Amino acid sequence: MESNQIMVKMVLDRWYSLLKVFDTILDSVSDEKLQKEVSPGKNRGIYLFGHLVAVHDDMMPILNFGEKLFPELEEPFIKFPDKATSTIPSASELRAMWKKQNEVLNKKFESLTPKEWFEKHNSISAEDFAKEPHRNKLNVMITRISHLSYHSGQIALLK
Amino acid sequence: MESNQIMVKMVLDRWYSLLKVFDTILDSVSDEKLQKEVSPGKNRGIYLFGHLVAVHDDMMPILNFGEKLFPELEEPFIKFPDKATSTIPSASELRAMWKKQNEVLNKKFESLTPKEWFEKHNSISAEDFAKEPHRNKLNVMITRISHLSYHSGQIALLK
Repeated sequence: MESNQIMVKMVLDRWYSLLKVFDTILDSVSDEKLQKEVSPGKNRGIYLFGHLVAVHDDMMPILNFGEKLFPELEEPFIKFPDKATSTIPSASELRAMWKKQNEVLNKKFESLTPKEWFEKHNSISAEDFAKEPHRNKLNVMITRISHLSYHSGQIALLK
Repeated sequence: MESNQIMVKMVLDRWYSLLKVFDTILDSVSDEKLQKEVSPGKNRGIYLFGHLVAVHDDMMPILNFGEKLFPELEEPFIKFPDKATSTIPSASELRAMWKKQNEVLNKKFESLTPKEWFEKHNSISAEDFAKEPHRNKLNVMITRISHLSYHSGQIALLK
């Protein structure tokens, strides 16, 4: 195995195992429990869940996979903090989005060659990328791994 | 920059930025607050903090850096769950250990060449490593990145 290929496997293996961890958490937190704050006065589970779907959706344009699947999530879950708007999707709607999103994203991830993972993503200019080649597509995944873990640890408190 | 070198930079940059995030959290959570549960009925902040120091200490033997710095942390913070033993270090002792540990570990990380990061760690046999070359030293860091993020998100709730 080439070293690029090994590195992609390291990162994607971790991504898929975190998705599995998160699915296990989701399975053990009811829709009703998701409405609760993860700790008194903090974000609700449903807000953090929607935030994850919205942030992962942003990988579509960043990684050049196409348009966002759920652009309507940006406002309530990225732009605004929790409880700022009452018009957010229900827990079961978010669960369906999460499932659909992973089907689409995982297929896209598998379609990239190791070489393509080390190419520039769409949030960096060609000029900056020439100076900072570590800011590639695979690096976006590493950032998302730590982001997903951070909020998984919080939502897990509702179990 | 060689591709191995780029990969190491991607992973270590993320590690150092997470340490920074965690230090900011630690700075805004008093010793007294660390004694509280991160959410009612869940682990206390001090337990999760000790757990992180204990798990990171385990990188010393796993990455062939030498003996653990604080072997006494394994029992209260890895072997046992929170509140199972009353003999745990104080918050200020843990803060000093965390600081010392990062000085030692970060120096060790910087001493490895990109090639060495892709060599086998001490928790895998040579036979298994030949079949699974992605289970290398850098992969240990990726796992620790997601572990650190997971518990950082929880301790941050005490802010």
